[in-house]
Amino acid sequence: MYKLVLIRHGESTWNKENRFTGWTDVDLTERGVKEGRDAGKALKEKGFEFKYAYTSYLKRAIKTLNIVLEEMDQLWIPVEKSWRLNEKHYGNLQGLDKRETVEKFGEEQVLMWRRSYDIRPPKIEETDDRHPINDPRYKNIDEEGSVPATEALCDTVDRIVPYWENNISQNLKKYGEVIVAAHGNSLRGIIKHLKNISNEDIISLNLPTGIPYVFEFDENLNLQKDYFLADEETLKKLMDEVANQGKK
Amino acid sequence: MYKLVLIRHGESTWNKENRFTGWTDVDLTERGVKEGRDAGKALKEKGFEFKYAYTSYLKRAIKTLNIVLEEMDQLWIPVEKSWRLNEKHYGNLQGLDKRETVEKFGEEQVLMWRRSYDIRPPKIEETDDRHPINDPRYKNIDEEGSVPATEALCDTVDRIVPYWENNISQNLKKYGEVIVAAHGNSLRGIIKHLKNISNEDIISLNLPTGIPYVFEFDENLNLQKDYFLADEETLKKLMDEVANQGKK
Repeated sequence: MYKLVLIRHGESTWNKENRFTGWTDVDLTERGVKEGRDAGKALKEKGFEFKYAYTSYLKRAIKTLNIVLEEMDQLWIPVEKSWRLNEKHYGNLQGLDKRETVEKFGEEQVLMWRRSYDIRPPKIEETDDRHPINDPRYKNIDEEGSVPATEALCDTVDRIVPYWENNISQNLKKYGEVIVAAHGNSLRGIIKHLKNISNEDIISLNLPTGIPYVFEFDENLNLQKDYFLADEETLKKLMDEVANQGKK
Repeated sequence: MYKLVLIRHGESTWNKENRFTGWTDVDLTERGVKEGRDAGKALKEKGFEFKYAYTSYLKRAIKTLNIVLEEMDQLWIPVEKSWRLNEKHYGNLQGLDKRETVEKFGEEQVLMWRRSYDIRPPKIEETDDRHPINDPRYKNIDEEGSVPATEALCDTVDRIVPYWENNISQNLKKYGEVIVAAHGNSLRGIIKHLKNISNEDIISLNLPTGIPYVFEFDENLNLQKDYFLADEETLKKLMDEVANQGKK
């Protein structure tokens, strides 16, 4: 039996400031660090022993993973980083305050950008420092596909599914126990694929930060069950928090 | 031109307690963490931008690397871990207090074990929990060579040189700027090889903890110059500290 654990990074400074983050490389808050520690403790207590780990190119996910692995005394396992695990690119909204954006464009438009499956926020210009082509970490990924200037959830799903098929799922079969520390929308992409969730339904899945989400598979990599490492009450509270971001 | 930076991990709890550490997976002290931060700041100030990083399977080196990369805002680069970068295995001395060992075996014998090129401390038994075969992280490295139960410096050199030749030097040519965070003796192995230092002379090279050691190469990977990122006085003080460990 194979075990996959997905974990959304702990609270970041811009989660707290309520700004659109996307590919902006913001740090964890103190609460975010604590969420990582608690997740590591919970995983250790449940006897998880990862053999391989994945994370994005963004420090809030990388640090969450490092904190989890340190708590589990597993810092030595191989860690693979990929831009394909990055958060959804929020285009020209990156850096804007969510409430101000609501006031400017209206709640409906902002909810469309945040929660629709295929409506993209305005692109970032290539001359803009925030465009990925101006960041050295994305310089050498041309062969894998071009980096986005904006994304709808459908685009994030389209870049994560091949990575799951060709890479993560292969190492899950090879290593047996794998952890992926990433972001709300890149993890939605994996979950949509694993649980065959519709375009409409995936939008209302609000992943809490820092709570390990466990997937168990049989020897043919058929999903057997999935569950969060948290009690119902905690989980509901955290999911509501995420859902309520960006509302007036 | 290619740039390689070697860094010995910051002070560990057993450096401080003056015990033989070897492959024992001890943590950094607060001073060790600070040494990592200072190294990261110095490297950033000098304009280093690593594209690839190496470390061992031991947390004092992994954490030093993570701290350095975090200070440089370079957590996103690929990090490769290898047991070949581990500290010299100290056999059955691992865990013993250095002064007590001196009192028991005599200063000369202990200096032989610590400082001779080819005299091995007594082996650890396979039934001993401290033997690498009883640690999951060394379970899957049979194909690369068997793990040691004790080592003299010559053994450490013998396992590090092929890794330099087949792996690190290749990625140095590919990526241009590479950092290796490791241990006193595994780094001695690399330095011995790069600077063609004799078996006798390598023993008196005392690497300070947490000070970046820079090697610059031409396009054919011929060494052009090497220098520490520290002033002479600091360097001498730190090297003397290391040299004086284990003396009565």
